[in-house]
Amino acid sequence: MRIDIITVLPELMTSPFEASIMKRAIEKKLVEVHFHNLRDYTELSYNQVDDYQFGGGAGMVLMIEPIDKCISKLKSERTYDEVIYMTPDGETLNQRMANGISLKENIIILCGHYKGVDQRVRDTLITREISIGDYVLSGGELGAAVLCDTIIRLIPGVLNNETSALTDSFQDNLLAPPVYTRPSDYKGLKVPEILLSGNFPKIEKWREDEALKRTERLRPDLLE
Amino acid sequence: MRIDIITVLPELMTSPFEASIMKRAIEKKLVEVHFHNLRDYTELSYNQVDDYQFGGGAGMVLMIEPIDKCISKLKSERTYDEVIYMTPDGETLNQRMANGISLKENIIILCGHYKGVDQRVRDTLITREISIGDYVLSGGELGAAVLCDTIIRLIPGVLNNETSALTDSFQDNLLAPPVYTRPSDYKGLKVPEILLSGNFPKIEKWREDEALKRTERLRPDLLE
Repeated sequence: MRIDIITVLPELMTSPFEASIMKRAIEKKLVEVHFHNLRDYTELSYNQVDDYQFGGGAGMVLMIEPIDKCISKLKSERTYDEVIYMTPDGETLNQRMANGISLKENIIILCGHYKGVDQRVRDTLITREISIGDYVLSGGELGAAVLCDTIIRLIPGVLNNETSALTDSFQDNLLAPPVYTRPSDYKGLKVPEILLSGNFPKIEKWREDEALKRTERLRPDLLE
Repeated sequence: MRIDIITVLPELMTSPFEASIMKRAIEKKLVEVHFHNLRDYTELSYNQVDDYQFGGGAGMVLMIEPIDKCISKLKSERTYDEVIYMTPDGETLNQRMANGISLKENIIILCGHYKGVDQRVRDTLITREISIGDYVLSGGELGAAVLCDTIIRLIPGVLNNETSALTDSFQDNLLAPPVYTRPSDYKGLKVPEILLSGNFPKIEKWREDEALKRTERLRPDLLE
C-alpha cells in the first residue's frame, strides 16, 4: 500500500510515523508513506497557499491551484483508488471503513487547514470525504495520522500476532472484555478468579459474556 | 490549563505539540503540556511496564503499579479535575464535551497501548474514559493528541480571531457552509456570484442556508 499525504504542515505529522507500529510497518515495506508540502506547489511569493475567503469572514482558505497541481502530478505517476479529504463534515470513520480502505493499493490524503479548502477542490478533485469524529481540529493532519494508524495496523504482517487486531473492540461489533495482568493482587485489588483458573473454555465464555455486558452498558447502539 | 500526559511512547506524540496552534498556545503560556514516560515509574528490569494478560490471549497489558505511582505523584503535587483514559470503549468525544473539558484547570490523560490497561486502573484511578471514534488505534497517543487539539484551540486567546472557532462545524450543530478563495475563476470553475456581490446581509443568509442544506444532506442526525 502507498499513502501520499498532502499538507501545509508536514512537520506536525512526522512523529506518529516514526514510532511504534507505523514505523515498523514502513520499515518492513508493508506500506509507503510520502508527505507532500503544499507550499512546494505554489508559484506565489512567500510560498502562499491560502487566502481570505470570498464574501468576508474569519479564517483562511487553502487555494485550489497548488492542490490541483500536487494531485495532478501524483496522478500522472500512478493510479489512485481514492483521493480522501479529511474534514469534520465528511463520512464518520469507523472500523468497517478502515477495513475497506486497508485493502486499497494507492491513496491520497489531503489535509485541510485553517478554515478548510476551496469548495471547488471538494467538488472536482476529491473522491471521498472522511471525518474522524464530531469535533473540530486545527487541521486535517491529526485526522490523517489517525486514519493511517487505523488502516496500517490492519495490513497483514504489520501486527506480530494477527489475532491481536481481530480481538480488538469493534471488529465483531462488541467492545473488548476487561483485561488484567500481574500482580494478581495489587493493594487488595484482585483479578477475577476465573482468569487464574486455567480453564480456557470457561475463560473464553467469561470474556464473551463480559464483552456483551460491557457493550450493553456502554454502547447499546452497536448491538442494534 | 495544565495537561499531564502519561504514555509509554512520548516520542510518538511530540510533533503535533511542536507545530501550529498547539505550539503557539504553549509558547503563549495559555496551556502547559507535560509528558510522563511510564517507564520512569517501574522498578522492574528493562523498565518493564506491561505483561501478558491473565487467562491467556494475544496482546500485552499495561500494569497497574507504574500507572498508580505516576498518577499518585502528580496528585500529590496538585488537584486534578479529571483523570482521563483514552480507550475505544469510552464516551465518544464530541464538540460539546471538548467545550466542557477546555474549561478545566488540571487534567491527566492516560494513553493505553498494546491491548489496554489492567482493568483495576480503570476501576479505581480513572474518572473519565474517552474515545475519539469507533475505530481502533495502535495506542491512546494519537487519541490524546486529538483530544488536546480540540480543547486547546478553544481556550480564549489561542486562536487569533475568536470568531474563527465559533463558526466551525458543530459549534451550532450545523456543518460549516462551503468556502471559496481566489481565483474567482479557476479553469472555468467559478465561485458563486453571491460571494462576490459585497452584499453582506445576503451573503450571511446564503451561508446559513448552505450550512443547513449541507447538514440536512450529510448529517441529518445533527438536526434532530
